[in-house]
Amino acid sequence: MSEQRKLKCLSCKEMYSTNEAGTCKECYEEASETEEELKREIDDLKSKIAFLRFCSPHHTRSSFSDVVLLASDESLTNPVPVSAHKAVLASRSPVFKAMLEIEMEESRSGTINISDVSYDALRTFVNYLYTGDACLDEQMACDLLVLAEKYEVKHLKTYCEKFLVSKLNWDNAVMSFSFAHQHNAKHLQESALSMITDNMENLIKTEEYAHLVEKDARLVVDIYEAYLSKRVNTAAKRD
Amino acid sequence: MSEQRKLKCLSCKEMYSTNEAGTCKECYEEASETEEELKREIDDLKSKIAFLRFCSPHHTRSSFSDVVLLASDESLTNPVPVSAHKAVLASRSPVFKAMLEIEMEESRSGTINISDVSYDALRTFVNYLYTGDACLDEQMACDLLVLAEKYEVKHLKTYCEKFLVSKLNWDNAVMSFSFAHQHNAKHLQESALSMITDNMENLIKTEEYAHLVEKDARLVVDIYEAYLSKRVNTAAKRD
Repeated sequence: MSEQRKLKCLSCKEMYSTNEAGTCKECYEEASETEEELKREIDDLKSKIAFLRFCSPHHTRSSFSDVVLLASDESLTNPVPVSAHKAVLASRSPVFKAMLEIEMEESRSGTINISDVSYDALRTFVNYLYTGDACLDEQMACDLLVLAEKYEVKHLKTYCEKFLVSKLNWDNAVMSFSFAHQHNAKHLQESALSMITDNMENLIKTEEYAHLVEKDARLVVDIYEAYLSKRVNTAAKRD
Repeated sequence: MSEQRKLKCLSCKEMYSTNEAGTCKECYEEASETEEELKREIDDLKSKIAFLRFCSPHHTRSSFSDVVLLASDESLTNPVPVSAHKAVLASRSPVFKAMLEIEMEESRSGTINISDVSYDALRTFVNYLYTGDACLDEQMACDLLVLAEKYEVKHLKTYCEKFLVSKLNWDNAVMSFSFAHQHNAKHLQESALSMITDNMENLIKTEEYAHLVEKDARLVVDIYEAYLSKRVNTAAKRD
């Protein structure tokens, strides 16, 4: 009897019993078509991206560049200029746009000073404005997030936040929470907060906690409020 | 007995009989996840495209433009200049790149004359170089394909070819075939040829055929050769 009810799956080709039945044949075929269509759409979008991305100006002999950026990190006595195009900077960042369109110092001199940033971070930042790509580690993601927030490059900010959320762990949660608060990175801040409030008993033993109480007690209050609200909600659900 | 074997499809919720079985439950769940993932990837790619596309220079107060293009259609006595950026033109077209990087007339004067093109087509062409988008009808797709071939903008050429293939019908097949041959549009040429050779009996009655024999007999020979080869293949399969 049970043998009679064995069916062959059209996808994995294994036999299965009727109580593990998935879809009818029609829906299986439809789903396969949808998948093919989505994959074709992805290929089209990727080729459009390849068309739209710019060669980064420091990977080619910089052509028609009309502006340079300088990393004015205090440790750099002779900063290396990163060359770029006003049109690209203005199109990617409303802050650069305003800076360059209004006749400010930067527009006249063709030099933009970027404070508190390393040459590497600046180069990676400019490269991202041209290509929409960056190779990140945690330090670079933090540096770029700060630049993205300052120059209002939303796409880059989201990119860095996603990366930092993926790297969240108990050891960096408090620092990430504080960093995210400082640079208005809501998504990272919420993810870090949720990790912290899941682990309150351990929190107060950490150095980071002691340091945060010292530096920004208001932020520690936010943590306790979130913790309390989570406990109340959990209790309400239980009842 | 047959009633017992009715199963409920997890996707469309209809009952189906075992001989119309599609997938097992596991494969259904996997396929749903894959679809979600592909859709997320599409959203990411779309947001990257939104980041990478430029504001078209004639939709904003043109900022930092350093070159103009002129449609030197003979009917235009006072052509309106289309302003642009050397960096964008050079990044999208190897022909513009060479023209602008080598100290040619165009680079010195900051003016590029584009021959045999209407102002509308030129504007749409430049707009595409900035945004990767164009609103096409058949005439515009032909005009842009010619420009794309001339200035080696592959992405645009593919875009126009796809559009023209989608508009192929018996009335425009011969003209499309000839046009595609003239501008090296292989994909369009093959699609048109296949439509023509499916309908040879009607071909020789048409005006377009008579005109093509007159204008380019070599191309008519190509049609006959393709027809013959198709017949031979069909016969071989039948045996």
